[in-house]
Amino acid sequence: MRLLALDPALRNSGYAILQNEGSKLGAIAYGVIRNKAQLSMPGCLLEIHRQIDELIRLHSPEECAVEGLIYVQNLRTAMTLGAARGSALLAAAQHGMPIYEYPPRRVKQAVVGHGTAQKSQVGFMVRSLLGLTEIPEADAADALAIGWTHFQMHSSPVAVHRVNRPI
Amino acid sequence: MRLLALDPALRNSGYAILQNEGSKLGAIAYGVIRNKAQLSMPGCLLEIHRQIDELIRLHSPEECAVEGLIYVQNLRTAMTLGAARGSALLAAAQHGMPIYEYPPRRVKQAVVGHGTAQKSQVGFMVRSLLGLTEIPEADAADALAIGWTHFQMHSSPVAVHRVNRPI
Repeated sequence: MRLLALDPALRNSGYAILQNEGSKLGAIAYGVIRNKAQLSMPGCLLEIHRQIDELIRLHSPEECAVEGLIYVQNLRTAMTLGAARGSALLAAAQHGMPIYEYPPRRVKQAVVGHGTAQKSQVGFMVRSLLGLTEIPEADAADALAIGWTHFQMHSSPVAVHRVNRPI
Repeated sequence: MRLLALDPALRNSGYAILQNEGSKLGAIAYGVIRNKAQLSMPGCLLEIHRQIDELIRLHSPEECAVEGLIYVQNLRTAMTLGAARGSALLAAAQHGMPIYEYPPRRVKQAVVGHGTAQKSQVGFMVRSLLGLTEIPEADAADALAIGWTHFQMHSSPVAVHRVNRPI
């Protein structure tokens, strides 16, 4: 199964395309959709939607996983984040993909082993778990972690709590 | 000039198409995009985007006006409202329309004369201001009020505070 994992935000949206073959999970592509500070809010929504639509056409993922409600400072930030998320999820929905949501604590727990892990630990762990040559930048690492969580939840839900940190 | 005014929300999104001819402002179309309670969040985003895209193709508005940040109870509601808004604004942005935002207080002030007006007063006033045969339902009335505000701000900004309630 091929998955599109997303960590959307107005300025920097992390994405990852993951695929499992047998028991092995591999990262086909990952990165960050960047919008410059000068770009208007609607301009950012356009770019997020356009680039995710392009990713879907290029890699044909069958499912989509996204981070659930995250804590933000205020309602304005929540509305802006919601708009970025809406634009990203719309692209997935327009391709008929089912969308799964994972709370940030669950993602950290699945990848690092506890729900209060630091961002740097997430990057370190996804490199190890997915056999990447280097630690991905933070937003891409978050998307990869969401993808990892999705496969954990769907293939062996009880195993999630057993993911250990490397020695 | 022809305007698309929007009051987006996940379940009930108000819309209005307004046009000014000389000093007269008329409502060409208005209503509510409804999503049933059973429809998933991505399903709602699809419907909002699809129906607004259809409205734009049908009526060819040149500009878009939308309500600014509104007060909501919590972050989850703000994120959901933001997603609905993102989906609606994306449709306008995809047609290259400039988007204007008006805070709820300014809309009420422009239409009713004070920023703390009740919903029923907004409906009563837009009927009167736009010469409608009946009071529109609340979400459509909000969209019409946003549209009215846009034309007030762009044609005679200082006059906004002088809009009086009918006798």
